[in-house]
Amino acid sequence: MSAGRIKDIANIARLGHVEFRTTDLERARDFYVDLIGLHETERDHDRIYLRCTEDKQHHTFVLRRAQSAGVGHIGFVVADEDDLDRMKARFEELGLPVRWAGNEMLGQGRTLSVQDPLGFVIDYYATIQPVPWLVQQYHLHKGASPTRVDHVNVLTPDAQAGYDWYTGELGFGCAELTESDPPEQRIWASWLFRKSTVHDIAVMTGAGPAAHHIGLSLGDPLSIIRACDMLAGAGYANSIERGPGRHGISNALFVYVRDPDGNRFELYMGDYLTGNRGAEPIRWNLNNPVRQTLWGAPPPRRWFEESMAVETFDGSALQATRPPLMQAVPNYVPD
Amino acid sequence: MSAGRIKDIANIARLGHVEFRTTDLERARDFYVDLIGLHETERDHDRIYLRCTEDKQHHTFVLRRAQSAGVGHIGFVVADEDDLDRMKARFEELGLPVRWAGNEMLGQGRTLSVQDPLGFVIDYYATIQPVPWLVQQYHLHKGASPTRVDHVNVLTPDAQAGYDWYTGELGFGCAELTESDPPEQRIWASWLFRKSTVHDIAVMTGAGPAAHHIGLSLGDPLSIIRACDMLAGAGYANSIERGPGRHGISNALFVYVRDPDGNRFELYMGDYLTGNRGAEPIRWNLNNPVRQTLWGAPPPRRWFEESMAVETFDGSALQATRPPLMQAVPNYVPD
Amino acid sequence: MSAGRIKDIANIARLGHVEFRTTDLERARDFYVDLIGLHETERDHDRIYLRCTEDKQHHTFVLRRAQSAGVGHIGFVVADEDDLDRMKARFEELGLPVRWAGNEMLGQGRTLSVQDPLGFVIDYYATIQPVPWLVQQYHLHKGASPTRVDHVNVLTPDAQAGYDWYTGELGFGCAELTESDPPEQRIWASWLFRKSTVHDIAVMTGAGPAAHHIGLSLGDPLSIIRACDMLAGAGYANSIERGPGRHGISNALFVYVRDPDGNRFELYMGDYLTGNRGAEPIRWNLNNPVRQTLWGAPPPRRWFEESMAVETFDGSALQATRPPLMQAVPNYVPD
Amino acid sequence: MSAGRIKDIANIARLGHVEFRTTDLERARDFYVDLIGLHETERDHDRIYLRCTEDKQHHTFVLRRAQSAGVGHIGFVVADEDDLDRMKARFEELGLPVRWAGNEMLGQGRTLSVQDPLGFVIDYYATIQPVPWLVQQYHLHKGASPTRVDHVNVLTPDAQAGYDWYTGELGFGCAELTESDPPEQRIWASWLFRKSTVHDIAVMTGAGPAAHHIGLSLGDPLSIIRACDMLAGAGYANSIERGPGRHGISNALFVYVRDPDGNRFELYMGDYLTGNRGAEPIRWNLNNPVRQTLWGAPPPRRWFEESMAVETFDGSALQATRPPLMQAVPNYVPD
Repeated sequence: MSAGRIKDIANIARLGHVEFRTTDLERARDFYVDLIGLHETERDHDRIYLRCTEDKQHHTFVLRRAQSAGVGHIGFVVADEDDLDRMKARFEELGLPVRWAGNEMLGQGRTLSVQDPLGFVIDYYATIQPVPWLVQQYHLHKGASPTRVDHVNVLTPDAQAGYDWYTGELGFGCAELTESDPPEQRIWASWLFRKSTVHDIAVMTGAGPAAHHIGLSLGDPLSIIRACDMLAGAGYANSIERGPGRHGISNALFVYVRDPDGNRFELYMGDYLTGNRGAEPIRWNLNNPVRQTLWGAPPPRRWFEESMAVETFDGSALQATRPPLMQAVPNYVPD
Repeated sequence: MSAGRIKDIANIARLGHVEFRTTDLERARDFYVDLIGLHETERDHDRIYLRCTEDKQHHTFVLRRAQSAGVGHIGFVVADEDDLDRMKARFEELGLPVRWAGNEMLGQGRTLSVQDPLGFVIDYYATIQPVPWLVQQYHLHKGASPTRVDHVNVLTPDAQAGYDWYTGELGFGCAELTESDPPEQRIWASWLFRKSTVHDIAVMTGAGPAAHHIGLSLGDPLSIIRACDMLAGAGYANSIERGPGRHGISNALFVYVRDPDGNRFELYMGDYLTGNRGAEPIRWNLNNPVRQTLWGAPPPRRWFEESMAVETFDGSALQATRPPLMQAVPNYVPD
Repeated sequence: MSAGRIKDIANIARLGHVEFRTTDLERARDFYVDLIGLHETERDHDRIYLRCTEDKQHHTFVLRRAQSAGVGHIGFVVADEDDLDRMKARFEELGLPVRWAGNEMLGQGRTLSVQDPLGFVIDYYATIQPVPWLVQQYHLHKGASPTRVDHVNVLTPDAQAGYDWYTGELGFGCAELTESDPPEQRIWASWLFRKSTVHDIAVMTGAGPAAHHIGLSLGDPLSIIRACDMLAGAGYANSIERGPGRHGISNALFVYVRDPDGNRFELYMGDYLTGNRGAEPIRWNLNNPVRQTLWGAPPPRRWFEESMAVETFDGSALQATRPPLMQAVPNYVPD
Repeated sequence: MSAGRIKDIANIARLGHVEFRTTDLERARDFYVDLIGLHETERDHDRIYLRCTEDKQHHTFVLRRAQSAGVGHIGFVVADEDDLDRMKARFEELGLPVRWAGNEMLGQGRTLSVQDPLGFVIDYYATIQPVPWLVQQYHLHKGASPTRVDHVNVLTPDAQAGYDWYTGELGFGCAELTESDPPEQRIWASWLFRKSTVHDIAVMTGAGPAAHHIGLSLGDPLSIIRACDMLAGAGYANSIERGPGRHGISNALFVYVRDPDGNRFELYMGDYLTGNRGAEPIRWNLNNPVRQTLWGAPPPRRWFEESMAVETFDGSALQATRPPLMQAVPNYVPD
């Protein structure tokens, strides 16, 4: 108790929302709402608040007017207001930069903002305004019609440290992980969950802190195909970066897309139910090509080398740093 | 040969279009365009001209302002202008009411109008204005996104005569047919094609001349499910009359829907390729329940008993007459 | 805490398995393995142990040779062996019949067996033999290829008491519930979960204790259609009892099937993620037809009136009793 | 008319069958039957005769024991026995090698064999043994469950000559074509049909005479995904050569697979209905990347450079020759 591990004192429920920076708010809105099929809840001068069909909360994805692309907030929902107070105390004990965020986010309650040991700024909140559920409003569904913002995938030079932070301090379960070759055999990437899916966040080796992509869940496999068709019809064929394919890790069907700002998201369908945070993870070797793509072509090199800058604790864009000591690209990816 | 049978002198290509009468043109337009996913080509005061994604012609489905529901035109496309002249001569030889229609239909060329021996008024034309193909304009696809108006299904008291007319005089092939029990063993219904699918027109036993439904083809099986979901979401759950299910005849997945006027259409997916008009049809017994529904519940009685009135040669709505001598409802349908 | 409620002292993880009684073990095996697509793990003289593609445990569905159809075991998995001891103490405190079951179930560890206040015999166990995961062994997938045994749905004359037992004593969350009309407005049915789906168990009003069906989850909507087609192809068209359709409650696509013994299962796809056991349930009125079927026909009366007998604590088949005071069939179901 | 063009004197109905040479007959059989889902009709010492679910004829795909991989027969079905006699006379008039083939092919009637001006040996026959239709035998469907052998795609150094032969002499319609850049602007490839689909045969520029692939039609888009999954599960991930993707030409979803001998086939779904052989083809420029892949990655270079040898008129394997004067790989394909 007094030992003060977050996993003992705070109940993180799930990834809450991700905010994308955009240089053209209306273009981004049209892309995500009209083509991809997110739903607009509300907007103010600088932000448009979006949600998916299964969401009962005000926002799970936010577009914010900015000077450059990249990721603004990453937010997690916790069970209770008390969790926030206990987390603040623990983060201060650990010497991490932490503060109560201002109330600039519409619909969102008291928000604790911390810069974690990996350099990411993460917001935590327990309260968010309820909104009507769109699951059975099928006549309003459009495009790929995402059901939820499933996960965020981030890059850090030391993915072992990221695994340790999320499982050791924050009480996440690990569904699957990738290890580098022996003798080193460190964790190269891990898929970490609080909600009962494969992940709320994945931490991969790469230049960081940076964000690699967010994953939007779809309700059926055909929506992946429909999304590609609609992107092509609307002139965005070149925005389809990788896929469609089937991941070895997570078993999900996927396609990776770059939005008009170059920000990356994944349309994602068909992973499996987890729930037991103590269960043994599925282990993969970094250089096993089936790990990333059960069938089909390897990812293009830019999928490994390009990422989204994340903001610093004071709100300016952060420069990602290259991983100094580890292999960043598996050996099956062509030059 | 020299006998001048139409099949030797005219090349009917396919079902051209069907016109539905509606008492509320805008409501009907919103239903078919916004919810079902047809595309508006053009409109004038009384008509809205619609097409499907694979259509390269001005219209394949037309909504017309009228005092009551029902079917206005049924049109077939022929290969050449000459076909029309030869058909006119032959129809006159047979003593059928025939005339050149006025040019009230936008986008449609010279049109021959005949009242056939079953009492239906059928229009034939060779020329129709070409329009852009929407197949790969996937970002414009909505709802069930029909790919074509596949067929029309009509009712007549003497379905054997209907079969004889279409196969003997008009050169249609017969893909499948339903026979009543021996000793009579007459044709109770037939599925008749010119294009290489199971049918352009089906002729079933029932009070007639009347139209039972039109069939809109879909591109994949999930579109049937999506259509039901969208209808339910928009408050039209009660409009879903029968299905979804799989037909024994035609092998297609189907759902039957009543539009806001009560007119009936079928969303239809997964029949097979035909093409050989001389091939032996697949034969079914009337009282074989698998014939209509390979799996699942029998059709509701109103599916058999309710139909759409068709217009007379002078343009007024026609009263359908009940079939006098034959069984109109299979014995597996509950009272 | 000291109150000793199960929810504080035991962590029930999820529905573990359901055992169906069959009068022809090999016929049942062929039906579930060859046609439906379950996988055989092991067998002994009287039982065949089956699992689904996502299962990592020895069995989630069991067929047992018996003199009549019906349900044998219903088993739940708990987190730890200690949970079993705490549950035993609590059940004894409540005066419920409770004992350690023999080790007749292959692959299953120490098992606590209790007759709950509704009259059902429920087994709890923490340990079950791990087996290879079949998710990515796609070449072995067949039929509808169920991914998991998702839930069991049971009948009891007093569904309010069932709700109270599972939420109040056993710590289940409630995702959705159905209430009878005011002024009584009692709970007529509830969908109760431990794993993060809509339910592990549903408790409905009806003659009981009895089991209504088990639900097998599928990975995509087309598998529902494929299952109907395969059942029809194999001569089981009449075994398709209800659907396919979309539930209002749970939002899942469904089809209900009776196996060769008459036991009932549901193929189920597309519910949503839950997880917060404290969240407010979605509420439906009993006589709202959309509740059971978002689109399409109401259930046939036998879907309400026929159920599966369950065994007594001493292993003999139990006679279900009719609910004395409550409406058992919604008013939209035709006689 | 009196000129005696084949299109006036012979009615070619559709592609009849393609024979693949295999160095391991049983391995090839297991691959195509157990994994891909073709159905075995009959076998003799050197051949296994296969068909698809919609086929009503003895064989549409044949595996033949041989010393090397490649393509043996390509066969087309004609309407009547008389067609064969008229074709023989015309081919002799044109000075082409032509003969009646022996009766080595089980189930197949009188067969005319000709070496066409492009160097391909083509068999024509009117009679083939009818066999039961498997469309509604859904319990026997497996794997990708192809519905028909849709087309063959061949390579020749002079694709303009191929287009001229098939449209000018054999009466094929052309659904789509690819032209090289001006000023030359010759036909680089054409998609040619007799049945009412996009093609029975496509003729592309390349080292030839050689065969590029055969296309197997599937009934729904998910079968493409299921096929990739099953191939991966069975250890054939590396056999997935290109895709899945959507073709610009034909609009079909596709995946290209190499069988255990290295022979290439395409799983193909979702092209559109044709039928009017006089209609204007859709025209594409060779270097338009959307032409081959509406979305996603360009084909790998080996998809352009590797092909299947075809047999000479005397039955020995033929060496393909490189196209001397034309661009064989579009400029968007990476080196």
